[in-house]
Amino acid sequence: MSAASREDCESLDAADPLAPLRERFTIPAGLIYLDGNSLGLMPRAVAGRADAVLGEWSARLIRGWMEEGWWDLPLRVGAKIAPLIGTAAEQVVVCDTTTTNLYKTLTAAVRLRPERRVVVIQESSFPTDVYVAESVARQMDGEFRVLKSGEPLEAALDGGVAAAVMNHVDFRTAEIADMAAATRAIHDAGALALWDLSHSAGVLPVRLEECGVDFAVGCTYKYLNGGPGSPAYLYAAARHLADSAQPIPGWMGHADPFLMENEYRASAGIRRFLTGTQPIISMSILDAALDAYDRVDLAAVRAKSVALTSRFIELVDERLGLEVLSPRDPERRGSQVSLRHPEAAAVHDKLMGAGLQGDVRSDDILRFGFNPLYVSFADVWDAVEVLAAVLGEA
Amino acid sequence: MSAASREDCESLDAADPLAPLRERFTIPAGLIYLDGNSLGLMPRAVAGRADAVLGEWSARLIRGWMEEGWWDLPLRVGAKIAPLIGTAAEQVVVCDTTTTNLYKTLTAAVRLRPERRVVVIQESSFPTDVYVAESVARQMDGEFRVLKSGEPLEAALDGGVAAAVMNHVDFRTAEIADMAAATRAIHDAGALALWDLSHSAGVLPVRLEECGVDFAVGCTYKYLNGGPGSPAYLYAAARHLADSAQPIPGWMGHADPFLMENEYRASAGIRRFLTGTQPIISMSILDAALDAYDRVDLAAVRAKSVALTSRFIELVDERLGLEVLSPRDPERRGSQVSLRHPEAAAVHDKLMGAGLQGDVRSDDILRFGFNPLYVSFADVWDAVEVLAAVLGEA
Repeated sequence: MSAASREDCESLDAADPLAPLRERFTIPAGLIYLDGNSLGLMPRAVAGRADAVLGEWSARLIRGWMEEGWWDLPLRVGAKIAPLIGTAAEQVVVCDTTTTNLYKTLTAAVRLRPERRVVVIQESSFPTDVYVAESVARQMDGEFRVLKSGEPLEAALDGGVAAAVMNHVDFRTAEIADMAAATRAIHDAGALALWDLSHSAGVLPVRLEECGVDFAVGCTYKYLNGGPGSPAYLYAAARHLADSAQPIPGWMGHADPFLMENEYRASAGIRRFLTGTQPIISMSILDAALDAYDRVDLAAVRAKSVALTSRFIELVDERLGLEVLSPRDPERRGSQVSLRHPEAAAVHDKLMGAGLQGDVRSDDILRFGFNPLYVSFADVWDAVEVLAAVLGEA
Repeated sequence: MSAASREDCESLDAADPLAPLRERFTIPAGLIYLDGNSLGLMPRAVAGRADAVLGEWSARLIRGWMEEGWWDLPLRVGAKIAPLIGTAAEQVVVCDTTTTNLYKTLTAAVRLRPERRVVVIQESSFPTDVYVAESVARQMDGEFRVLKSGEPLEAALDGGVAAAVMNHVDFRTAEIADMAAATRAIHDAGALALWDLSHSAGVLPVRLEECGVDFAVGCTYKYLNGGPGSPAYLYAAARHLADSAQPIPGWMGHADPFLMENEYRASAGIRRFLTGTQPIISMSILDAALDAYDRVDLAAVRAKSVALTSRFIELVDERLGLEVLSPRDPERRGSQVSLRHPEAAAVHDKLMGAGLQGDVRSDDILRFGFNPLYVSFADVWDAVEVLAAVLGEA
């Protein structure tokens, strides 16, 4: 099948039920933005919200904590993310960074399996996840076991494993893991499953509860468009909440914070994973940004994602002949296509100069992320045009 | 000596060299704001900075990390705080929350004394500090020793102590600790000294290096006016940097983050205390807010602070007869005055209704904070007028 023409892509855009969502974002003129897997575009709604929260601070001052709802903002924004990751609101809280949230949830997980000493992590994980897993294992005088790429998960699982940290979508290749099967295997070994959703939430349906996941963490500045360094989120299954002991207790997670007592008693709910006072301005902007997902059907987002990446791969195959690192089976591919090129950094610089923004990982990987909320089929066509021109294949 | 009249206070304002600084802040009409020890007023400069950082995000997108300097913002803002706490720039970084920073620095401190098992904390500490100290002690299978109020520090120190967490200014009473003497005593016991500066930085000179302090943490939304939940800071003495191992390693603190390698190698400098990606919008606003301290002499700030709190106490003594919990010796008093009242919460509600914002702690403490950058002597007079009216002493 031929990938056809730009007109063909324009027809797809004209028929795309999600196309109007693009209007919810600020898109710089002349830019083809395929880096929403690193930092999402700015939703238009955030400018007004920034003004509003500065108004709350300047006028309401300390009373803003209760009267403007800052106190509960981590839970309210968590409740907006919950449906995107397949869970009820009361199990998600927005706070801190993905790193810190992984540290808190992984420590809580291993404490739920005190007789076990092994933490499993994938070699292909985002490096920070590896560092955190190693640190948590060292702090419990335990073992840190790295699952090599290509090895079956079962090879790393035995009766000593307390918890396994899994990537939902691989940040280099965009390969989607089978969350249900992997979680089942981890549970069969008596261990707990912790998933990093940084590269999946927002562009494909995530089914944490359906898959029986124990804990999860994720970032909000990629596909969720929360802005640079916007606060992260974490999920804890309801069945673990009462027994979860996280290592950074703070008054925000205390059962009765205003008693100001020196004995820590964790809040009954997900609030126990809160530590210190959260950055309310950044979190308010994330709150507004998430409204870009208002009344958006994630199944439609996923269908468009598959169509965008499939079309991109077809055009790459036809016109560029670069090695496609991402799975060719769309069922196994997230909303990103990675291409191998030995001079990735130099190519990337030229692409930027020509108006195409992707990014580079591991020296020889060009990554292109497709957020179906704002990437069009015409963008796909234009991106390949730029690639062809830069690579001299035009 | 009589506290005299409002006219007398107006004369003091007219002669106050810091009075023009008030123009740097947005002050709601009709409000006497004595709660800058909880959440500082909004500096006028932040509105423009909020617009600017949204412009950076929307136009520059992922390139903002390098081209707009987001990547180094934690160090640049740290460098602005450094002179306020008596240290060189390269030892301060802004990130995360005070809670998380205390957890990271305290863990790093106890790891520097691996043969010792005791963490000392003050009973009078902010409760979160107690929770964190207990958590860190438990994670090293160590002991958690609480120094009772009124006991000399030496009573808690012996050859088993790895680190002691100290309050610079007590959040209930505003009593200033003798940082030099306490740090010396802690060092004499072979332990490391970690100070919480949340209630001192910005309103009195802090001399971390002169006092030989090992680690410090502090909050930026109180006297530093960074906005609700603005990111916190931490200090690590240069002599400890190379050997400091913090427990939440992340790629932002890696010696070469873009290598994306699975082995953690900590950055050579203070950057090793960074964990995940920081909230750039909140941090940019803090950066702008700190410009309110541009060309401000901290000795003058301290002199005005003493004058404001002394005048307030005189008027309280003359007109109200409430018990003053804060030290009467101005040398031992931070920029806050605490009054005891058995119905503190009810009184507080009436004060708010009459335009005076302070706050309440521990049921029977009314706290009033005086940030000399924007609190005037007329505010002091007016605050006591409101107190007298509410308490029926007018």
